Amino acid sequence: KVSPCTDFDMAYFHSYAHVGIHEEMIKDRVRTETYRTAIMQLQSHIEGKVVVDVGCGTGILSIFCAQAGAKRVYAVDASDIAVQANEVVKANNLSEKIIVLHGRVEDVEIDEEVDVIISEWMGYMLLYESMLGSVITARDRWLKRGGIILPSNATLYMAPVTHPDRYSESIEFWRNVYGIDMSAMMPLAKQCAFEEPSVETISGENVLTWPHVVKHVDCYTIQVHELESVTTRYKFKSMMRAPLHGFAFWFDVEFSGPTTSPINTLANNLALDGGQNKKRTNPNDALVLSTAPEDPPTHWQQTVIYFYDPVEVEQDQLIEGSVTLSQSKENRRFMNIHLEYTSGGRSFVKESVMR
Amino acid sequence: KVSPCTDFDMAYFHSYAHVGIHEEMIKDRVRTETYRTAIMQLQSHIEGKVVVDVGCGTGILSIFCAQAGAKRVYAVDASDIAVQANEVVKANNLSEKIIVLHGRVEDVEIDEEVDVIISEWMGYMLLYESMLGSVITARDRWLKRGGIILPSNATLYMAPVTHPDRYSESIEFWRNVYGIDMSAMMPLAKQCAFEEPSVETISGENVLTWPHVVKHVDCYTIQVHELESVTTRYKFKSMMRAPLHGFAFWFDVEFSGPTTSPINTLANNLALDGGQNKKRTNPNDALVLSTAPEDPPTHWQQTVIYFYDPVEVEQDQLIEGSVTLSQSKENRRFMNIHLEYTSGGRSFVKESVMR
Repeated sequence: KVSPCTDFDMAYFHSYAHVGIHEEMIKDRVRTETYRTAIMQLQSHIEGKVVVDVGCGTGILSIFCAQAGAKRVYAVDASDIAVQANEVVKANNLSEKIIVLHGRVEDVEIDEEVDVIISEWMGYMLLYESMLGSVITARDRWLKRGGIILPSNATLYMAPVTHPDRYSESIEFWRNVYGIDMSAMMPLAKQCAFEEPSVETISGENVLTWPHVVKHVDCYTIQVHELESVTTRYKFKSMMRAPLHGFAFWFDVEFSGPTTSPINTLANNLALDGGQNKKRTNPNDALVLSTAPEDPPTHWQQTVIYFYDPVEVEQDQLIEGSVTLSQSKENRRFMNIHLEYTSGGRSFVKESVMR
Repeated sequence: KVSPCTDFDMAYFHSYAHVGIHEEMIKDRVRTETYRTAIMQLQSHIEGKVVVDVGCGTGILSIFCAQAGAKRVYAVDASDIAVQANEVVKANNLSEKIIVLHGRVEDVEIDEEVDVIISEWMGYMLLYESMLGSVITARDRWLKRGGIILPSNATLYMAPVTHPDRYSESIEFWRNVYGIDMSAMMPLAKQCAFEEPSVETISGENVLTWPHVVKHVDCYTIQVHELESVTTRYKFKSMMRAPLHGFAFWFDVEFSGPTTSPINTLANNLALDGGQNKKRTNPNDALVLSTAPEDPPTHWQQTVIYFYDPVEVEQDQLIEGSVTLSQSKENRRFMNIHLEYTSGGRSFVKESVMR
């Protein structure tokens, strides 16, 4: 039942042993401060409670939880960065409260139920890296009925985008290189620039219309098999006339208290900390960490899947098709993206892999 | 005698098959325009002559030479980018003049002597990537007596640098992370940030005193065995009081006509295009491509070897020691850097590898 730890997993864990990646994540103030704010807003659910931090990294979220009054925090990470997390915990005299466990959530032992799962598991395009599976494992192994998961839900969006600057910098550029026509380079340039998904920051102005929800994840109910392959059909109506260069993907996550899901609501009716339903009646009340193009940039940026050639679309023209995101068979931390799109009577298919 | 093509060489050639790397080099205007200016300034030595372009990439330097009136240009590249170069040549109706040879200079055949060797062979820290060896091979196989090599010589420099911002961003940063003392991260942060040479752009203000010449390369006379290991002793006197954070390395190359070296002078006395000695009497006359911190930035930037801990130096304090750059036994395109330094009576050794 427990998935074996592959060479690919080892390489993945190893990549997180480098300090630079943690420095980058911690310096992402939108990310780190939203987590801290969420912990402070939900302090009443953390104070005196048992928390597990899935993929704790340097341990910063565990320390925030300890500062919020958690009784005990299990900080779990399979990467060697756990050794550092333990040093940080000791140096802050928090060894009594924070127990660093160096191993996979599948393998480590926690001898009690937990009230709170906190995790910063989101990858590019939300699902890249597949760390959500570890949150599910932690939930199914240790979460108390009525316990909370932070973030509690996540949504992956997509929208058609125009990005003439990017296209001209990398492709049109070859038409005139110091006066030389090097357009013979263009087919290979397109392949090199646009074969793989591109993680980059775009702006709201690049987006042609309202986004489509590719996948909504309720962290209380999501099952691992649902993540193996996600398919959605979309239909966009472009709000303007523009060359369509591809689709951008981004996500947001919400930090809600109890009663996020029906199962949980039921549990809460029995639990001591029930009666928080009010929180959910106003959906704007939940704290949101957004990586949308119109919001302040984060280290996740946006992920853009470019076409090899732009498609001219008119205002109000329909762009429709489907997208399938699936775990690579070769390495489950890679993601295959199968994109079909039809616009103005022409149909296209684009296959790409996020490695 | 001909060195075999290793897996490492294959990986190296493969890395140049990606368009992005050529786009970056071509968009480096300092690099590309200096080469073009050199070709135009030395047009009298190129017009009607046979040229070989070692590591031609997309073929842009070969086309510049054809535009300058070269009779024939052999454009050699072992990377698959040679296929693209050939397409570019055909599209520009230059197939009569430019012959693209897809292979190593050790392996391809050119059935005539050449008048001019042009190559953009310089790597980070000048010698990283070891492409100069290919220029030497081309010279020894094909260069006519009295022929010219562009660039004709190269100089690698080093100087002590102070860079408090870099140190504070990556190291001191951990002292206070959202109010948490994470200084337990600092030893690993130092290792991750400073174990390997760092390619980055510094400014003239980071440099503590005049540079030392690590190695001067005369492209007419340099031998392959001289590149296997380069050792120099240095002695600096700091012009200011500052924390010494490490040493920066950069290089420049010169584009001179004939008579750069005694051998060549002799050859030129017999050659038709002799009598250019005037050119060399004023050393400022030669066109220079510089990657120094005080000059406009290039894609080579500078290479900095940081110490794990800064050394406080006073004004006029001596910093002395030695540095050895040697080809890695594991992969001759990697470079080992052995650095010894003494300042204020304390001695240090730093070993690093540029991969």
